Amino acid sequence: MIQDIHITSPNDRVAAAKLKMMRCNVGGLPVVDGQKLVGIITHRDILLAGGEALGLKVDDLMSKDPIVADEGTPIIDITKIMAEKGYQRIPVVQNGNLIGLITQSSLIRALADLND
Amino acid sequence: MIQDIHITSPNDRVAAAKLKMMRCNVGGLPVVDGQKLVGIITHRDILLAGGEALGLKVDDLMSKDPIVADEGTPIIDITKIMAEKGYQRIPVVQNGNLIGLITQSSLIRALADLND
Amino acid sequence: MIQDIHITSPNDRVAAAKLKMMRCNVGGLPVVDGQKLVGIITHRDILLAGGEALGLKVDDLMSKDPIVADEGTPIIDITKIMAEKGYQRIPVVQNGNLIGLITQSSLIRALADLND
Amino acid sequence: MIQDIHITSPNDRVAAAKLKMMRCNVGGLPVVDGQKLVGIITHRDILLAGGEALGLKVDDLMSKDPIVADEGTPIIDITKIMAEKGYQRIPVVQNGNLIGLITQSSLIRALADLND
Repeated sequence: MIQDIHITSPNDRVAAAKLKMMRCNVGGLPVVDGQKLVGIITHRDILLAGGEALGLKVDDLMSKDPIVADEGTPIIDITKIMAEKGYQRIPVVQNGNLIGLITQSSLIRALADLND
Repeated sequence: MIQDIHITSPNDRVAAAKLKMMRCNVGGLPVVDGQKLVGIITHRDILLAGGEALGLKVDDLMSKDPIVADEGTPIIDITKIMAEKGYQRIPVVQNGNLIGLITQSSLIRALADLND
Repeated sequence: MIQDIHITSPNDRVAAAKLKMMRCNVGGLPVVDGQKLVGIITHRDILLAGGEALGLKVDDLMSKDPIVADEGTPIIDITKIMAEKGYQRIPVVQNGNLIGLITQSSLIRALADLND
Repeated sequence: MIQDIHITSPNDRVAAAKLKMMRCNVGGLPVVDGQKLVGIITHRDILLAGGEALGLKVDDLMSKDPIVADEGTPIIDITKIMAEKGYQRIPVVQNGNLIGLITQSSLIRALADLND
């Protein structure tokens, strides 16, 4: 899992979250309050919400109660969730705190490395 | 590989390609002239180019000479290209014609199905 | 260091900050509240955020807690930060107040003058 | 000098050149016809030209006869040109062919490395 994660806060503006996604070339950000995972916001959500939503707070637009994994979740279960739901990323939590992120790209990278 | 592929044409407007990506929830489209693959255009590219680029033609903005696979390319080689270049999708061609698309999502789906 | 610095305020519109950068031919502005440095905003950030972000306030989009130097920071340390992070400019502060700016251009100018 | 250089062609659209600059996070591109350096185009030029210019060809907007260096030009002379003219980058040519690029960032990086 990715441990150096790009995140946003519920009090950040949607515009700042969008900028961070563009800058870091990622399609979504876990939303973290302190260390606690409180939601997830995706670039697609922001684009669908339209330009008028850019001045809102992330908290206004984020998906609450995202599907999460913990450190013990088998990778295969994560691929099933991604395949069924079309999710690109699954946050990894411990006692509600965000400790990592599994993305489709990180799984592809692991797959590529397995065969080196 | 995906055979029912969303595509765009070099003569389409960038705005139409962007709309198709939003509607189909995909991050990029192969650009096809007749059946021939001539380029690739991504949602990120369109966002980076800015709103004024929406009236241009796809041909003006697309990446030419994209990295491609053929039907015989081992999946592992494709994962390596995706991991190294950060690509989300690799077109599959036969004699220059587009016949399929391998996306990170399609690989994750295959991985999930393998273990059913 | 540059002491006659172009700045913006957290309450300025993003559009006004962008205009100032275009007019002054600079790629970024320290954001100053009173005399206190509160952030930094770059032209690239504004372009990445997109045209709809122009009506927001600088505060909504700026990077908070920028890396800063003080008057005693060795120039060599500043070049290292610029090289590692890709930064074009480092604000110089004293007790949290902005007192100067080191840009890549100002360092090149100093280098050119050294050899006159 | 940088030898793995991002370039554009006189026949590319201005929009494609702008996109490449945004994607590669560079402020300007040498314009190359075959291997021959024929001009330079900067992000600032494109922004100043305005959105209507995006559909033009790079050839229509680029600066012709840019100031260049050759492999023997002393670095100090390059810093002087950068300081006097405000240039961020100087192409390096050999018999009219582009063989490298000196940017302010590459000089800062060299300076940082010198002191390791």
